[in-house]
Amino acid sequence: MKWSQSLLYTLKEAPSDAEIISHKLMIRAGMMKKLAPGIYTYGNLGLRAIRKFENIIREELNRRGCQEILMPMVHPKELWEETNRWEEMGAGLLKFKNRNDQSFCLGATHEEAVTDYVRNDLRSYKDLPRNLYQIQTKYRDEIRPRFGLMRGREFIMKDAYSFDMNQIEALKSYELMYSGYKAIFDRLGAKYRIVQADAGNIGGSQTHEFQLLADAGEDALLVSDTTSYAANVEVCPAIDFEPHISQEVIKPKEKFETPNQKTIADLSKFTQVSEKELVKTLFFSANDGTNPKDKSLKPVAVLLRGSDELNPIKLKNVLGLTNPPQMLTDLEVREVTGANPGSCGPVGLKIPVYMDNGVSGLRNYIVGANEDGYHLRNVNHGHDYQVTLQADLRLAREGDKCPESSGKLKSYRGIEVGHVFYLGKKYSEKMKATFLDQQGKAQFFEMGCYGIGVTRTVQAIIEQLHDQDGIVWPKAIAPFHIHICLLDVKNDIVKNKAFEFYDKLQNLGFDVLIDDRDERPGFKFKDADLLGMPYRLNVGAKGLEAGELEIIERKTKTVHKVKVEEVIHFLKQALNT
Amino acid sequence: MKWSQSLLYTLKEAPSDAEIISHKLMIRAGMMKKLAPGIYTYGNLGLRAIRKFENIIREELNRRGCQEILMPMVHPKELWEETNRWEEMGAGLLKFKNRNDQSFCLGATHEEAVTDYVRNDLRSYKDLPRNLYQIQTKYRDEIRPRFGLMRGREFIMKDAYSFDMNQIEALKSYELMYSGYKAIFDRLGAKYRIVQADAGNIGGSQTHEFQLLADAGEDALLVSDTTSYAANVEVCPAIDFEPHISQEVIKPKEKFETPNQKTIADLSKFTQVSEKELVKTLFFSANDGTNPKDKSLKPVAVLLRGSDELNPIKLKNVLGLTNPPQMLTDLEVREVTGANPGSCGPVGLKIPVYMDNGVSGLRNYIVGANEDGYHLRNVNHGHDYQVTLQADLRLAREGDKCPESSGKLKSYRGIEVGHVFYLGKKYSEKMKATFLDQQGKAQFFEMGCYGIGVTRTVQAIIEQLHDQDGIVWPKAIAPFHIHICLLDVKNDIVKNKAFEFYDKLQNLGFDVLIDDRDERPGFKFKDADLLGMPYRLNVGAKGLEAGELEIIERKTKTVHKVKVEEVIHFLKQALNT
Repeated sequence: MKWSQSLLYTLKEAPSDAEIISHKLMIRAGMMKKLAPGIYTYGNLGLRAIRKFENIIREELNRRGCQEILMPMVHPKELWEETNRWEEMGAGLLKFKNRNDQSFCLGATHEEAVTDYVRNDLRSYKDLPRNLYQIQTKYRDEIRPRFGLMRGREFIMKDAYSFDMNQIEALKSYELMYSGYKAIFDRLGAKYRIVQADAGNIGGSQTHEFQLLADAGEDALLVSDTTSYAANVEVCPAIDFEPHISQEVIKPKEKFETPNQKTIADLSKFTQVSEKELVKTLFFSANDGTNPKDKSLKPVAVLLRGSDELNPIKLKNVLGLTNPPQMLTDLEVREVTGANPGSCGPVGLKIPVYMDNGVSGLRNYIVGANEDGYHLRNVNHGHDYQVTLQADLRLAREGDKCPESSGKLKSYRGIEVGHVFYLGKKYSEKMKATFLDQQGKAQFFEMGCYGIGVTRTVQAIIEQLHDQDGIVWPKAIAPFHIHICLLDVKNDIVKNKAFEFYDKLQNLGFDVLIDDRDERPGFKFKDADLLGMPYRLNVGAKGLEAGELEIIERKTKTVHKVKVEEVIHFLKQALNT
Repeated sequence: MKWSQSLLYTLKEAPSDAEIISHKLMIRAGMMKKLAPGIYTYGNLGLRAIRKFENIIREELNRRGCQEILMPMVHPKELWEETNRWEEMGAGLLKFKNRNDQSFCLGATHEEAVTDYVRNDLRSYKDLPRNLYQIQTKYRDEIRPRFGLMRGREFIMKDAYSFDMNQIEALKSYELMYSGYKAIFDRLGAKYRIVQADAGNIGGSQTHEFQLLADAGEDALLVSDTTSYAANVEVCPAIDFEPHISQEVIKPKEKFETPNQKTIADLSKFTQVSEKELVKTLFFSANDGTNPKDKSLKPVAVLLRGSDELNPIKLKNVLGLTNPPQMLTDLEVREVTGANPGSCGPVGLKIPVYMDNGVSGLRNYIVGANEDGYHLRNVNHGHDYQVTLQADLRLAREGDKCPESSGKLKSYRGIEVGHVFYLGKKYSEKMKATFLDQQGKAQFFEMGCYGIGVTRTVQAIIEQLHDQDGIVWPKAIAPFHIHICLLDVKNDIVKNKAFEFYDKLQNLGFDVLIDDRDERPGFKFKDADLLGMPYRLNVGAKGLEAGELEIIERKTKTVHKVKVEEVIHFLKQALNT
């Protein structure tokens, strides 16, 4: 592409709403431009990277027998009601009425749509397995879009869905997609981890996330220092590396005054007891709003060590809810306990009490007295109050024990770019999607679903691969392989030579950008560094006279002096390895 | 693709809502499946044809210096308010509020979005011309979707937008796109006409439609039998081939009783005067609702010969409206005239009267008396009533005079698949999108916009090219070039030979479908005819023994007996011509 005849532009400054480096770089490189919060136009440069990634996905999925289709973005309400997700998905599903007063939503995911697509037309066990995928623009109504394409509203996703005759076959399909995803992310040349994860409200039991590692990642990952174990902190079991089991004898509980001691930190200072030996009591509503007719609160208490943090996903799963539970308001806590949150404890409560494993080893501990300004000391579970259920409820953290070995967990930040789910019959049963088995009997499909955030991955790659001067594209999805800087636009010999390289390299199948603008070399080099194509070729009068041109590798900034007649050969070698 | 491992299916019957043959065939061939009215999932077969057409478009546009980008499907209200089209577009623009109570719409067209994209970043006359295009899923809230992808709600469109420094350059861009569109539709191998058309509420003055000819087309076209003149009936000037100019002397008007004569046909029979010599009076509101605060009716009367039909687009343009005017209800007509519609006429009206050219040559004609059950005879314009404006208001028809020669117009039906518009500064002025000219002065861009209905074209091709057995794909967008029917699945020699052809033909770059299902030959042939790939190769034991295989050309049904060793050569020759 000739820069002088294209709508390419660069910006010196990123807008103030771009918080992370990849967002800033994409805006500054003109890869995308905001139309509304979380909604972007992809410029030609951005679209080229996106399309290249899409084609990598296509190649790997087609190779594994998947078939591309294209489903609608606008879905009728009736479809989502079949699985109850019209309500369950919450406000992230954008709903609207058309001119005929019929309700629709913008498809944020396509389990319902694809199940409707196959039912009736995928008829026999002989037609299985099948795996259908699409690459499509999706919309999720993020309440606070940020980080550019990371948490945008409109985005491109690849979503695939497998249909199998039984669980064994379904798990084979899962493994095939897992291997496909590895192949896809390996081809990107990026650092990533495959981690165990939570299924959210898509459903299903077995699931892995593909996480690109980056400091600005929204997800906390824990990786074993001994085995291949890796998990999203959302689901990572929390196991103390050195469990604490008190051998004290049980003492009688006593109430004591704790004026203005509202936080665990306050209380620790006041009582001279370390935070990890204090017990805090949190209150949640076990009504997660999935049944809009049920307005009851269903309060529950949760006990954790003062030094630990609750993992809301674990509590959600323990309570059997669809969405994570909401904390009670101060007013609601007072209604349940008679005191403000800072003075509450489990003793005397009439509601279910869930205790984290970490509390189980403690004896004679301090909890709120359910009376403002008072706490109880020498409190013991099973003695002063009863526990409804003891479970793993806290967030795991760096230094915890690896759940699969005697090693320790190490912490990373990641950006979730892919996800594989084994769904089972959740959707096929609800939507009555069946095939005929060998005996001619109708059976529900075993399903799996598999997503890759296409636009998110492109940005995540930049978040991982950049330097202070700009983007550092991996070859696989670089918008162009080679960036020619024509340094003397008005010198016809230089110009002709530069365009000779441009034509030859294009004929060899490389994507080439030539900066043929009437600008200073330094200006062009800055732009080339910002745009970040793998190789830059400088073509100027000086170099041609000397018979040697500069080829700069973007990643390492290494400058190679290459004889004019060897330029093509050098670039062929460099790009084909 | 191997049929046995793909989600391909065929249906014997099309659903009852499929009215036209192309819609029926697409459903029966499994090319698409309805999710909701006007909303379809494209199966792999349908998507292949769509993608091939998209790539033809890309090649021809890139060749002409256009650049692909991708704009959002969800647009904020503020964007469309800049051009007043938030109101003007009417109910076809699907509007909704997000969870934060902000108003958005689904982009039905992207003049606003692209103008916003270039403003500020396309800065100088040196950066012009530029032409940006996208291939994108769009949504229009059709009140009554029908005919499959012809009048669907969700559809894929290619839309391009040109930016130029002045009108001369803008018209060059227009010509370039016009030639690009010709190249694109020529490559499809379909019959089409380029016709003059109405700009609708996109704006602009110069515009052409690309119409694929098909009997089921929604558009009426009139084509000169002498010159290259062709127009959509919406804009075709209506000129009597033999103008009728009465030489009668003006007689005094007189009222006469016409009990129960409500239609022109009734009146013609009752009065023994031919319909073309009667004058009918229609009533419209010149308030087209673009200003929602203006609730006034603004009634106007329109006079036409009894034998003619009103062209609402011509009336819209004469009245200077944005949308075609609405007819008055019977109640409103009575308020304006004192009579029911069947007894109304221009004499004594206090509202503007617009007269079609066809009435001007009449003398002493009959009109309603504005009194139920009465008409007036010997009425004359300029004498018994005054005309506000005489204009061309009727629909042109076959047999009218060609506006550019002495020839006659011939009538065709067409499906609008492409459209080129010269827009001028309509959008750039309203959105303050400027560039700096040679003198450093800010100037508004001269724009053009250019659309191709991608999914609509694919269906229109089928509407034009099919026979009683199914689809007849042109090579350019056939989902597969060659359809191999493997006739003896259980015979390993036959199977190996069929797959040998399959591999060889694929390696030559052809797209090949092999029907390797365990089904009878006759069953497979029926499906092959329905799916309609250009060439079918039958591979069976009998043929192999005889050393000769059958290759059937889908279009002509010609059966070629080809020696086994010449099969590849034959298909190469056949497909590369």
